[in-house]
Amino acid sequence: MAGNSIGQIFRLTTFGESHGLAIGGVIDGVPANFEIDVNEIQKDLDRRKPGQSAIVTQRKESDTVQILSGIFEGKTTGAPIGFMIQNENQKSKDYSHIKDKYRPSHADLTYDKKYGHRDYRGGGRSSARETASRVVAGAIAKQFLKSKGIEINAFVEQVGKIKMLTFENIDYSATELNDVRCPDPKVAEEMITFLKEVRKQGDTVGGVIQCHVTGTPIGLGEPVFDKLHADLGKAMLSINAVKGFEFGSGFAGSELFGSQHNDLIQKDNSTLTNNSGGVQGGISNGEIINMRVAFKPVATLMRDQKSINDKGEEVTVQGKGRHDPCVVPRAVVIVEAMAAITLFDHLLRNKTTQL
Amino acid sequence: MAGNSIGQIFRLTTFGESHGLAIGGVIDGVPANFEIDVNEIQKDLDRRKPGQSAIVTQRKESDTVQILSGIFEGKTTGAPIGFMIQNENQKSKDYSHIKDKYRPSHADLTYDKKYGHRDYRGGGRSSARETASRVVAGAIAKQFLKSKGIEINAFVEQVGKIKMLTFENIDYSATELNDVRCPDPKVAEEMITFLKEVRKQGDTVGGVIQCHVTGTPIGLGEPVFDKLHADLGKAMLSINAVKGFEFGSGFAGSELFGSQHNDLIQKDNSTLTNNSGGVQGGISNGEIINMRVAFKPVATLMRDQKSINDKGEEVTVQGKGRHDPCVVPRAVVIVEAMAAITLFDHLLRNKTTQL
Amino acid sequence: MAGNSIGQIFRLTTFGESHGLAIGGVIDGVPANFEIDVNEIQKDLDRRKPGQSAIVTQRKESDTVQILSGIFEGKTTGAPIGFMIQNENQKSKDYSHIKDKYRPSHADLTYDKKYGHRDYRGGGRSSARETASRVVAGAIAKQFLKSKGIEINAFVEQVGKIKMLTFENIDYSATELNDVRCPDPKVAEEMITFLKEVRKQGDTVGGVIQCHVTGTPIGLGEPVFDKLHADLGKAMLSINAVKGFEFGSGFAGSELFGSQHNDLIQKDNSTLTNNSGGVQGGISNGEIINMRVAFKPVATLMRDQKSINDKGEEVTVQGKGRHDPCVVPRAVVIVEAMAAITLFDHLLRNKTTQL
Amino acid sequence: MAGNSIGQIFRLTTFGESHGLAIGGVIDGVPANFEIDVNEIQKDLDRRKPGQSAIVTQRKESDTVQILSGIFEGKTTGAPIGFMIQNENQKSKDYSHIKDKYRPSHADLTYDKKYGHRDYRGGGRSSARETASRVVAGAIAKQFLKSKGIEINAFVEQVGKIKMLTFENIDYSATELNDVRCPDPKVAEEMITFLKEVRKQGDTVGGVIQCHVTGTPIGLGEPVFDKLHADLGKAMLSINAVKGFEFGSGFAGSELFGSQHNDLIQKDNSTLTNNSGGVQGGISNGEIINMRVAFKPVATLMRDQKSINDKGEEVTVQGKGRHDPCVVPRAVVIVEAMAAITLFDHLLRNKTTQL
Repeated sequence: MAGNSIGQIFRLTTFGESHGLAIGGVIDGVPANFEIDVNEIQKDLDRRKPGQSAIVTQRKESDTVQILSGIFEGKTTGAPIGFMIQNENQKSKDYSHIKDKYRPSHADLTYDKKYGHRDYRGGGRSSARETASRVVAGAIAKQFLKSKGIEINAFVEQVGKIKMLTFENIDYSATELNDVRCPDPKVAEEMITFLKEVRKQGDTVGGVIQCHVTGTPIGLGEPVFDKLHADLGKAMLSINAVKGFEFGSGFAGSELFGSQHNDLIQKDNSTLTNNSGGVQGGISNGEIINMRVAFKPVATLMRDQKSINDKGEEVTVQGKGRHDPCVVPRAVVIVEAMAAITLFDHLLRNKTTQL
Repeated sequence: MAGNSIGQIFRLTTFGESHGLAIGGVIDGVPANFEIDVNEIQKDLDRRKPGQSAIVTQRKESDTVQILSGIFEGKTTGAPIGFMIQNENQKSKDYSHIKDKYRPSHADLTYDKKYGHRDYRGGGRSSARETASRVVAGAIAKQFLKSKGIEINAFVEQVGKIKMLTFENIDYSATELNDVRCPDPKVAEEMITFLKEVRKQGDTVGGVIQCHVTGTPIGLGEPVFDKLHADLGKAMLSINAVKGFEFGSGFAGSELFGSQHNDLIQKDNSTLTNNSGGVQGGISNGEIINMRVAFKPVATLMRDQKSINDKGEEVTVQGKGRHDPCVVPRAVVIVEAMAAITLFDHLLRNKTTQL
Repeated sequence: MAGNSIGQIFRLTTFGESHGLAIGGVIDGVPANFEIDVNEIQKDLDRRKPGQSAIVTQRKESDTVQILSGIFEGKTTGAPIGFMIQNENQKSKDYSHIKDKYRPSHADLTYDKKYGHRDYRGGGRSSARETASRVVAGAIAKQFLKSKGIEINAFVEQVGKIKMLTFENIDYSATELNDVRCPDPKVAEEMITFLKEVRKQGDTVGGVIQCHVTGTPIGLGEPVFDKLHADLGKAMLSINAVKGFEFGSGFAGSELFGSQHNDLIQKDNSTLTNNSGGVQGGISNGEIINMRVAFKPVATLMRDQKSINDKGEEVTVQGKGRHDPCVVPRAVVIVEAMAAITLFDHLLRNKTTQL
Repeated sequence: MAGNSIGQIFRLTTFGESHGLAIGGVIDGVPANFEIDVNEIQKDLDRRKPGQSAIVTQRKESDTVQILSGIFEGKTTGAPIGFMIQNENQKSKDYSHIKDKYRPSHADLTYDKKYGHRDYRGGGRSSARETASRVVAGAIAKQFLKSKGIEINAFVEQVGKIKMLTFENIDYSATELNDVRCPDPKVAEEMITFLKEVRKQGDTVGGVIQCHVTGTPIGLGEPVFDKLHADLGKAMLSINAVKGFEFGSGFAGSELFGSQHNDLIQKDNSTLTNNSGGVQGGISNGEIINMRVAFKPVATLMRDQKSINDKGEEVTVQGKGRHDPCVVPRAVVIVEAMAAITLFDHLLRNKTTQL
């Protein structure tokens, strides 16, 4: 009820604050007797961790995951997988300068008013650090999905106003070849130059991540409220800083005529076009599921900003600390994780559709 | 699990197919001892019903709701509200011409493959007729919300490429004054003319609905997965034909700098700008919650289309029947309903945040 | 949350008050493409309905179920099954004599205090009439279970102090041969004579129902909180008037030594004894699941009783109306229904235990 | 879905195997801004831990809880409380002698068949060690309940055939004064002597725990499926080794007449008798909630037993290791924990009954 769980059968519950002892979670509903490669989990965590390149925050945390239960002799047991990532420098931080201040476009004010008090250290529970736990569950879900031929690839398509122009024949393997995680090397270079300048200005900028799911069978998703794209949308919108979600033709599709938009079905059940984005009536139709996720600019600036404190007095929030100029390079793996958790949950849900 | 319920405390479960005996639902978690005006429910149903104007489907159904339980002597009892809307012309329809055909961009193929057989009459469960049940629950939620000062107003902002250009000082009461439900009378006129032409061409077109929630207190929404906007997004994406959702600055916000985007907090806790769309860290901050919902063009055309049947043979799907050229005029009240259900559920959830 | 649903995948939500327009429910998660015999549902309802014999209430209601959705051309579609049983004589009843009185050992006081007002007509939502909806869902679950070789048989083993003494080789088909539903004809006769006397005295009496599940495969039930017997226990304890639940050796087993109680495993995985009651570690082991369910005497007496009204004043509650002297004969099919709903839900849940 | 969570609003999810790295859990839905005494949690854990007296297992584990999140500056933050108890001697154990054997009346066979393989070390997930996590959540729930005047006291009323005879005016503070946790010192002495003899014989024995909840307001519990006693019953039946649950008059009540059993209501809303066990129509009526929980004898004997291995071959299971002759002395605090979790969850649920 308090909203720290996602998924119906494959279900992740996370805990932990930015500067507490540890963050972590419990994954329930993990099918038994399946070989898990724990290294793959760490690999995905490394794609999210701070300090990995010149265009992300320079904080240093190794984000090493410790699996506490649910895997025995290399295989899942059917028992819940408990895991933990220790916070390495929770004590060294000094957050007294924002202890009683509400940072603009952060969750400081809303948390304080809702809960009556708050863990002000680094945003506490509202910190994007929580998403590391999602990456763990996502990396596990991906392995199950892969065994069924389903693969998930996200990439940065836009940083500020710099955009990829075509999405035909994307080479997903190119995404990890540059720091900004844009599979078009020329656009990537432009983005990186731009982000270095943004950082120098003490400013931040938004961006868009696109995510493709390939190999989905026909039939995933439940009609009515738990449509596949509705659950994907919620999963993406639950990521910190996300302001929009669309799939298939998305907002652009609302300008079209039905005679342009309808995807004609071929004899092999495939469709000529894919304005539906791989989902029809809430259920996967076997085409590529393509989604776009919009991220706002990071709220923490390296500039002073006016705001108020918890007594309603005007104060100045100082720009200091080490932060990302743009969230999307590190968020690619988070988007993939949320897609994987949602898809795998629906794959399991679909096992009871017929007896 | 099969996805026919929404909400955690205020929880709607719907049933019914387009041409079965009846559609309806059960609303659980309705607070007791509250006076309900049943006429308000019917009023909202009338805003959704077919045949109400020249630019919507000319099918005739009265969509009269029957409350079966949970209200006694004019007040809620705390017991679940069961309700039903009888399908008036389920027998007169002849759907044999599409019985074994898969209509393009409909759910025919995906349902048939997923479930092993399907109710082909008017789309069965995949029909947007199901949304009438949502309107019932939404009309009840609205009354509870109104008693707490929260109001919800949706309107059509775009039909095809015809768009409202400004959203300052919108007069919500103007929305119901024209058939297309656009509060700008000049834009509305343009839309209506355009829709009549689209219908004449046997074609359909998409559109965008915007929804505003005013009067929300600070504190609604749960952090992490059940962020207020994530639940709103899922609710909207679960409506038939929706392809995209954004709130606050949305996709446009991803082009901005943090120094442009941050909403500065004033001494009264309000913000100078509202790029956050009324939600910060997943929790309402007291500003207007504004959302945009993109609808694709209706898939049923009054033109013949190529497709396949359930044996994989090429067939022609004939354009016949009575359908909407554009879904948005009738969907305004559905968007409001989904917003109301989500908001009221979160208002109840928030009652246990502190002891 | 308001507690009107049961089951995780195969999920029943009920609505309706004793004297409202109708009672009914929605069953979600029904596997698609399965032939349902609707007559079997009515047969089970007839085993529960009032007026069926001399030892139950003489009220007359046909309890005819109407399936509103989810079944098409004789088969389940995967869409939720909505159903309704109209209340035939809701208007003829006069409940003004108890309108403001709290009947002893009824839910009048607790409902009134909890909800702020109450539907006083025949107990409203607290009436055992609600269980008819459970019987509908149970009759559907039974058909699915039967297709997998699982059968459920309940019977009356005790009425007041009259008890069956042996449970070896019970002929389940004998249960329906007498009005009290005890498979031992001699004990049944004694019970019937006794119940007629109890009724003559204007009194009521308690009883015990035993339920056997045969044909269960090894593996149903989830460890930790959703142990098979824990979910069965909750299901039974949710039936009106139930005060106790035990399975296998039950309370008697707490007097035994481990060396007496342990069930030795044979080479075919069966056990020599069945003190475990068919469940070990919360998971079915393939033996008969046997449960005992204790019912208190019906609270409505045909005698005057002292009580208070809603102003805290002393009043006399008159004994009038038509009521059961003992609930167990009509509750046999309810116990079976709750067992069937729980077992089938766990059978479906078990489909995702391994990929 | 995999059953490792309990509670709707105050919701505990546990993880961990007997001999993995750690056991622990996440508690979601903890109301914010409440002072928690962490020492009280450890105190309850010490009442459950092994090695605390001569009549329980002599294994040594300190069972020290580590709170990882959700409490800041001594108060709950509204974020989930993650916690962990490290397993101290998981490596020293040698379980190779039962690695491929199925112990009688244990979960070895059912787990192996259900999951395809199993963690055989000390029972893995099926070990009662998991209940330590419940005690943590229970100790937190108790503190919230106490602030509302609700207290929970459990005690041993029966070991084998040795039983307390009266339950009038029990001095709950006497429970902790002896090793068996029976508040009647004479009966306690008899039990302790008996248990020492049972242990000497290499045998085990069952027992019964009674639990009283005092100070409950009128109104907790939801009608229909989530009746307060139904949820309490499930919670108790989910504890390892429990075979039966009853409340109020329980099984004995099924022998009574209604004229004996009805609890007459007094002018102050209290009842003359309490056969209802503090719950009427599933909702607390303000009287003491009293429950009895039956435990079977511990399945692990210090004697050799015949069984089979995972190849279906006959084997001998050797009696060795350090185990409890009877589970009830250590289970008293577990019963209290399950009562506390259930009661507090319902107290929170009841906050949305009326707006």
